[in-house]
Amino acid sequence: MAINIQNILSDNAKSMRRSAIRDLLSVANRPEVISFAGGFPNPDTFPVEDLKEIMMEVLTNESTSALQYGPTEGNGKLREILAQRYREQGLDITKDNVMITTSSQQAIDLTSRIFISPGDTIVCGLPSYLGALQSFWSYQAKPIGVEKDEELETVIRTLIASGRKPKFIYTIPDFQNPSGVTMNLNQRKMVLNVAKKYDLLIIEDSPYREVRFEGEAQPLMYSMDNERVMLFGTLSKTVLPGFRIGWIIAPVNIIDRLVVAKQSADLCTPVFDQAVITKYFEKGYFEKNLSKTIDLYRNKRNHMLACFEKYMPEGVTWTKPEGGLFLFVTLPEGYDSAVLFNEAIKENVAFVIGEAFHCDGSGKNTMRINFSFMNEERTEEGVKRLARAIEKMFQQSQIESPTSF
Amino acid sequence: MAINIQNILSDNAKSMRRSAIRDLLSVANRPEVISFAGGFPNPDTFPVEDLKEIMMEVLTNESTSALQYGPTEGNGKLREILAQRYREQGLDITKDNVMITTSSQQAIDLTSRIFISPGDTIVCGLPSYLGALQSFWSYQAKPIGVEKDEELETVIRTLIASGRKPKFIYTIPDFQNPSGVTMNLNQRKMVLNVAKKYDLLIIEDSPYREVRFEGEAQPLMYSMDNERVMLFGTLSKTVLPGFRIGWIIAPVNIIDRLVVAKQSADLCTPVFDQAVITKYFEKGYFEKNLSKTIDLYRNKRNHMLACFEKYMPEGVTWTKPEGGLFLFVTLPEGYDSAVLFNEAIKENVAFVIGEAFHCDGSGKNTMRINFSFMNEERTEEGVKRLARAIEKMFQQSQIESPTSF
Repeated sequence: MAINIQNILSDNAKSMRRSAIRDLLSVANRPEVISFAGGFPNPDTFPVEDLKEIMMEVLTNESTSALQYGPTEGNGKLREILAQRYREQGLDITKDNVMITTSSQQAIDLTSRIFISPGDTIVCGLPSYLGALQSFWSYQAKPIGVEKDEELETVIRTLIASGRKPKFIYTIPDFQNPSGVTMNLNQRKMVLNVAKKYDLLIIEDSPYREVRFEGEAQPLMYSMDNERVMLFGTLSKTVLPGFRIGWIIAPVNIIDRLVVAKQSADLCTPVFDQAVITKYFEKGYFEKNLSKTIDLYRNKRNHMLACFEKYMPEGVTWTKPEGGLFLFVTLPEGYDSAVLFNEAIKENVAFVIGEAFHCDGSGKNTMRINFSFMNEERTEEGVKRLARAIEKMFQQSQIESPTSF
Repeated sequence: MAINIQNILSDNAKSMRRSAIRDLLSVANRPEVISFAGGFPNPDTFPVEDLKEIMMEVLTNESTSALQYGPTEGNGKLREILAQRYREQGLDITKDNVMITTSSQQAIDLTSRIFISPGDTIVCGLPSYLGALQSFWSYQAKPIGVEKDEELETVIRTLIASGRKPKFIYTIPDFQNPSGVTMNLNQRKMVLNVAKKYDLLIIEDSPYREVRFEGEAQPLMYSMDNERVMLFGTLSKTVLPGFRIGWIIAPVNIIDRLVVAKQSADLCTPVFDQAVITKYFEKGYFEKNLSKTIDLYRNKRNHMLACFEKYMPEGVTWTKPEGGLFLFVTLPEGYDSAVLFNEAIKENVAFVIGEAFHCDGSGKNTMRINFSFMNEERTEEGVKRLARAIEKMFQQSQIESPTSF
């Protein structure tokens, strides 16, 4: 007789939530569906020929170390390269402040692991990154959403007054996933001041920062406060996601704790991939590929915005992000993007419902649209189909409205 | 003012233990030290030329998928290949029973995550794999050691009677790390019977299974019970550790839970590395490299045993493993290998103290010796040094003994 799993699951496992995106994607992955749902980089940005050159070099010259186990904190040269790059952005750090992680999802996970006990609160945005919410939930934390920046202090003061001081403030300051918006300097200062006033840690999760199409880069919060910010980065959006290389920049006493946690989690991040990426930076290939990527994605955003302008029915609004991979779309109040999703799937177009990014179940009339993956023709066709689905939903609700009171 | 980390650490973080191996290795890594401490495969076993060929093929033909995000459960082809290989060993499974993990350490970690709540007990060997113990501790479990197989049922019955039913039995049946011993068929049946009788899950952690020098392979416990065994495997000892590819074979309802946990942990295992390894299996390179690896390690074990015979002072005993990477050495009762370690480091030779592998602090007179990494000359010199350090320790204790009463 098989074991009854329910009886032996951990408390953590009981509080884990299956990713809404994951389940949506199983529908969205059908070939006839034009999917704006994923957060996939465009394969045209993958530096295939450069990787061929570098992999041959690594296998020829460094195979003994590159195929072996590596240090838990990551490749020393890569940590130094990253430290140097961030010093150029005003961070007062050394390689001792850098730990390589197996994707920036692991950065979120290990940070949750060392700080979250069951019942702890976390302050995050409404909306916020779903993968982070899932991680917080899986450690039995309660993420508390902040809708507008000016509410942040009130939310935190209220939590503290009720005996539920948050473990940290989770932010995505650059081209936020899902909203696409960027925090300006004053907003960053405000968050830092609040964190300082209430002695809180800030997570600055910034996977899209380098993918900026226009406007000026805002200073990293870490560059403004060396003692209470942890910064997460990744190569998934600037080089390739298939290597799973991310990192954490943090005060050394936090890095020490994270290293101990990572020993149990996976011992070390893929060593060969780190060796290849180290050489990739050393050869200066990163900048070359990044500017190509930015140009490509700027065009894609412009095209997506043009299609939205052209096809979207009145009442639908959307963000105009200065970088990143996503548009965030808002339907008129009262409409539900989960209802729209079913309509859209009939039209063979998909997106992610915005509610998934709202830890409190709000945001029902929102949706996330990826513009980095699809080609121009499919994008236009997809937006047409989406507009058609929205119009149908609008019409149906008009037809139905007489019956309601 | 910096955040006081101690004040905000999670309960999990407080129960994490820094790896004893890790701290020892920082000393053992000095170039003048001959280290038998690590568990490193020999770089001569890394299939460098085959990898060059395959990586070029993958980059040329599959870069779009191999450099992209991949499914959380792992590469579908690789899962099918592994399922097929295990079917040939008598397992009644399909690819749905297979999940790829970022190293087999992650297999241990995710399993701990979905089953262990704070205070839970786990039954394991005395000694047992340190990385597993660390993971259990980090989820605030209490691993309970079983010294002799025949005590297993008594230990479990006692735990259940005291209201502390273990979440699972953790075993390493083939060439155990650290002891090097292998469970025979009767021992395997006994564990399965006990697990069945008390309705317990068994973890069959088998990273060394394929590295067998002599004697006949024992059946996998999973092949004898399809419903209460989880089997962990890895390519770290048979192909290369630098890719961090491991896997879990388990009943589908457990795989489902693990996939949800892995979404939060790192989304997916390195995709490129999985694509390369898939082709590696498809081309039949795995068998070729494995038999080369076995021959190399058999010679190394034989040489290590010969050196032990030649140099070790009377009173020291050691295991003669039929496979794997380690010898387990026992000093006469009353001696402490931590004391020996300091003496050995003066002689520039290192090992891992056996106590690290004993969850109850026992095993003080034991040590683990790796034989896979070092060349013959260094091995002989290292064993000489170690023997010298042991003799010194013996002499010092004789000199000191008159002062004790």
